[in-house]
Amino acid sequence: MAVYTLEKIASHIGGTVHGEGSLKIDGVAEIALAAASQITFLANPKYKPILETSSAGAVIIDGNAGIEPEIPYIVAPNAYFGFLQAFLLFNPPQRLLEPGIHETAVIDDSAVIGKNVTIGANCYIGAGVKIGENSRILPNCVILNNSEIGSDCLLYPSVGVREGCRIGKRVIIHNGAVIGSDGFGFAPWQGRFHKIPQVGTVVIEDDVEIGANVTIDRATLGETVIKAGVKLDNLVHIAHNVMVGEHTVMAAQAGISGSTKIGKHVMIGGQVGTVGHISIGDGAQIAAQSGVAKEVEPKEQLFGAPARPIMRAKRIEAVTNNLPELAKRVKKLEKALEKLTSGENE
Amino acid sequence: MAVYTLEKIASHIGGTVHGEGSLKIDGVAEIALAAASQITFLANPKYKPILETSSAGAVIIDGNAGIEPEIPYIVAPNAYFGFLQAFLLFNPPQRLLEPGIHETAVIDDSAVIGKNVTIGANCYIGAGVKIGENSRILPNCVILNNSEIGSDCLLYPSVGVREGCRIGKRVIIHNGAVIGSDGFGFAPWQGRFHKIPQVGTVVIEDDVEIGANVTIDRATLGETVIKAGVKLDNLVHIAHNVMVGEHTVMAAQAGISGSTKIGKHVMIGGQVGTVGHISIGDGAQIAAQSGVAKEVEPKEQLFGAPARPIMRAKRIEAVTNNLPELAKRVKKLEKALEKLTSGENE
Amino acid sequence: MAVYTLEKIASHIGGTVHGEGSLKIDGVAEIALAAASQITFLANPKYKPILETSSAGAVIIDGNAGIEPEIPYIVAPNAYFGFLQAFLLFNPPQRLLEPGIHETAVIDDSAVIGKNVTIGANCYIGAGVKIGENSRILPNCVILNNSEIGSDCLLYPSVGVREGCRIGKRVIIHNGAVIGSDGFGFAPWQGRFHKIPQVGTVVIEDDVEIGANVTIDRATLGETVIKAGVKLDNLVHIAHNVMVGEHTVMAAQAGISGSTKIGKHVMIGGQVGTVGHISIGDGAQIAAQSGVAKEVEPKEQLFGAPARPIMRAKRIEAVTNNLPELAKRVKKLEKALEKLTSGENE
Repeated sequence: MAVYTLEKIASHIGGTVHGEGSLKIDGVAEIALAAASQITFLANPKYKPILETSSAGAVIIDGNAGIEPEIPYIVAPNAYFGFLQAFLLFNPPQRLLEPGIHETAVIDDSAVIGKNVTIGANCYIGAGVKIGENSRILPNCVILNNSEIGSDCLLYPSVGVREGCRIGKRVIIHNGAVIGSDGFGFAPWQGRFHKIPQVGTVVIEDDVEIGANVTIDRATLGETVIKAGVKLDNLVHIAHNVMVGEHTVMAAQAGISGSTKIGKHVMIGGQVGTVGHISIGDGAQIAAQSGVAKEVEPKEQLFGAPARPIMRAKRIEAVTNNLPELAKRVKKLEKALEKLTSGENE
Repeated sequence: MAVYTLEKIASHIGGTVHGEGSLKIDGVAEIALAAASQITFLANPKYKPILETSSAGAVIIDGNAGIEPEIPYIVAPNAYFGFLQAFLLFNPPQRLLEPGIHETAVIDDSAVIGKNVTIGANCYIGAGVKIGENSRILPNCVILNNSEIGSDCLLYPSVGVREGCRIGKRVIIHNGAVIGSDGFGFAPWQGRFHKIPQVGTVVIEDDVEIGANVTIDRATLGETVIKAGVKLDNLVHIAHNVMVGEHTVMAAQAGISGSTKIGKHVMIGGQVGTVGHISIGDGAQIAAQSGVAKEVEPKEQLFGAPARPIMRAKRIEAVTNNLPELAKRVKKLEKALEKLTSGENE
Repeated sequence: MAVYTLEKIASHIGGTVHGEGSLKIDGVAEIALAAASQITFLANPKYKPILETSSAGAVIIDGNAGIEPEIPYIVAPNAYFGFLQAFLLFNPPQRLLEPGIHETAVIDDSAVIGKNVTIGANCYIGAGVKIGENSRILPNCVILNNSEIGSDCLLYPSVGVREGCRIGKRVIIHNGAVIGSDGFGFAPWQGRFHKIPQVGTVVIEDDVEIGANVTIDRATLGETVIKAGVKLDNLVHIAHNVMVGEHTVMAAQAGISGSTKIGKHVMIGGQVGTVGHISIGDGAQIAAQSGVAKEVEPKEQLFGAPARPIMRAKRIEAVTNNLPELAKRVKKLEKALEKLTSGENE
């Protein structure tokens, strides 16, 4: 079992020790379960009473938590994040695959494979594909001709990358995600839909993470672009020619229609849908299940289907919630007025 | 062609014969198509007239159908289910794969494979994986290190099980489903999202069925749990640290956000979404496309986005449906009142 | 670099030349970027001013665009479609795979593979499968026993076709789509859900295109049918026993519940959900995110959850948008009336 001093843990997670830095710690645990030789964390000040009864030997807290534990502690920029880094220090991630190219992987002779690349069993790597150094392609992935994967990427099993896509560095793609499928474009003509060739591509920049079974369509012409730092949850759909700005996040099952441009630092909730050909400004926030049918200003906060500014949506929601009573009040007014009027006519 | 007596069929489906038990039957067919040598079923009493003109030699009915057919019949606990069991008696399922381990499957030496296990072509089975007896892993599945699959499981092609997951007995997983992908967790810090390590796992208990292209994320810490008997339809998303109680069912494209706890015998409709960190009580029913944003009591029936108790939701819906007329009535009232008031002022 | 005369391009895209047919063109480009040796297109007359400043050597326009460019031009039935055909003339699609059967594909001896079929690496083709001539099965696809794929089909990587499905000619199936997974059918009995055997199949007719990670369930009994010319976008879900009529299109993440019958030339928006066992008439149009809970007449245009006729839905929406003000007006009326009444009582 690994043992580290509090000082070492603080250094690992970018925090500062308060109290005995030479304290020896042999593991991490949640606050209610931690033993005297373990370190825990406290992110929410309301759990302070639990800390007071905890057996933990040390605790990681946020700088702004406003508490001063009686046991030795580490102040970290983000206590929960720091705790998980400490977890990894004690429990380093297992290696998912032996390094190197598995003998059952089928790799075209013209592919260019960087140093220290891992390619798992039953993968197919097409002609002209380039894979940057240290990248790991887990079993059963299929990367078609002339696509490029940057360095330090991690493709989980059964990922599909179609031909001619470009993927940056440190990109993580989870099982079953599809990059570069044809955009959904058809020209209606004489009662049938004729396929519009989808001859564009997909560009995914550095530090993007793409969830399981996500689909990102290639552009009709040009590029579908996922900018640096974007995080997409499982089962998200990105249509052709969409642009997703830097550090934007989308929760599961959101769907973005064709040619929509999404700004930076946008937050899109689960099951949100947007129409095509609109812009969503930087820093906008769209609540879960919203339907966005028109332009969104920077920093706008929207909610609902159709999506409205969140304060307005909540006011409408409050009235809607009492609609049966409102209808009764109108009926009562009508009766009262009728009585008044008929009284006048007497 | 197989031939069975009515008695034999009744025994196979757990029903009781009324009439000639030695009657020979050589197949099953729908009521309008059945020949004299075939057996049909009648689940809905309103189709009784069709039965009277049917050529079927026998019929399977529910005990509570309240009818007494003129032809020999079997009373079954569930007529439709019984009929399908009879169908399988006459049409036993074809074997999807030759038993045994296919020579192209890649299986780590440290994996423990039970008796009578089938592993199809192009599968990858990682280090320390355990697969229980009689389980069938169809082609192109990938099971990463140290995961455990119980006995009598059926994994259809291209299923992905990430490292360290535990799957019970008699679990069925359809094509392309992903078990144990990373939870969607990021710590925002200095304008970027930093990945929170997802070091937990997924536990799937006995008799669970998981639809095609479903995604079930591993816990951040601890376990995402799918309890015994749960049935998930295609394209469902289960986020990290979710708990789904025994015998709960979810229709297609439903999505459950992180850390939400769902009780037993809950029914969740298609495209439903829930927020994270809530509890949904035992026996609750959530209608399709609902958006659940707060705690749900046991046996509550909810509908709508936001989800409301179903009777209330229907009343609101009824008023909403007549909103344009309600607005006109308010306008009429305003005019009438203005007339009254101005009349007073004259 | 390929060079074609304007006449040759017109012939290729089915248009007619106006102006110098012998003009030599060496490429295609968007209107703002085109050089004198390139051809561009103009589909929307409002971009005519851009055309006037464009350096393009020639332009493809619609017959009904109502403009007469000063440079040589081709009148095409659909300018954008024609432009993309011209693009393909200059940039013929790269071959995704070497023709023939890859040595790592596992093909049952009893499978019948047509002439000129391509089967990629790590595919599995089960017993009794038939694949028609010229079809291409990209790497890591799995086609189980007795399924039939027609001629000239294209299955992208990691597609799964379960046993006994029938797929027509010229069908395109994108990565990760699943054809023939079990329908979601369970008989509740004694507190558990018992699997209803799904012994039917899926029939996909000619010229269908199926998006990435789509799921189409097999029928309980009989067939789930996708008729000729249907186009399904990514992540669509089709439940058991559904029938989708000719040339119907569905946008991404739509979900159709069991046994629903959809007519011809229906348009279904993204994230739409329908209940089961209803009919949707020919030519109906369902706007994105709608929830369809009852029969839809031919050519009906619906919107909303629950879905209503679109004009009605918009009127309701307009009133909803002003609900807080409507509630205030009702309150004002109540006060005014109270004042009136109390005045009377003075």
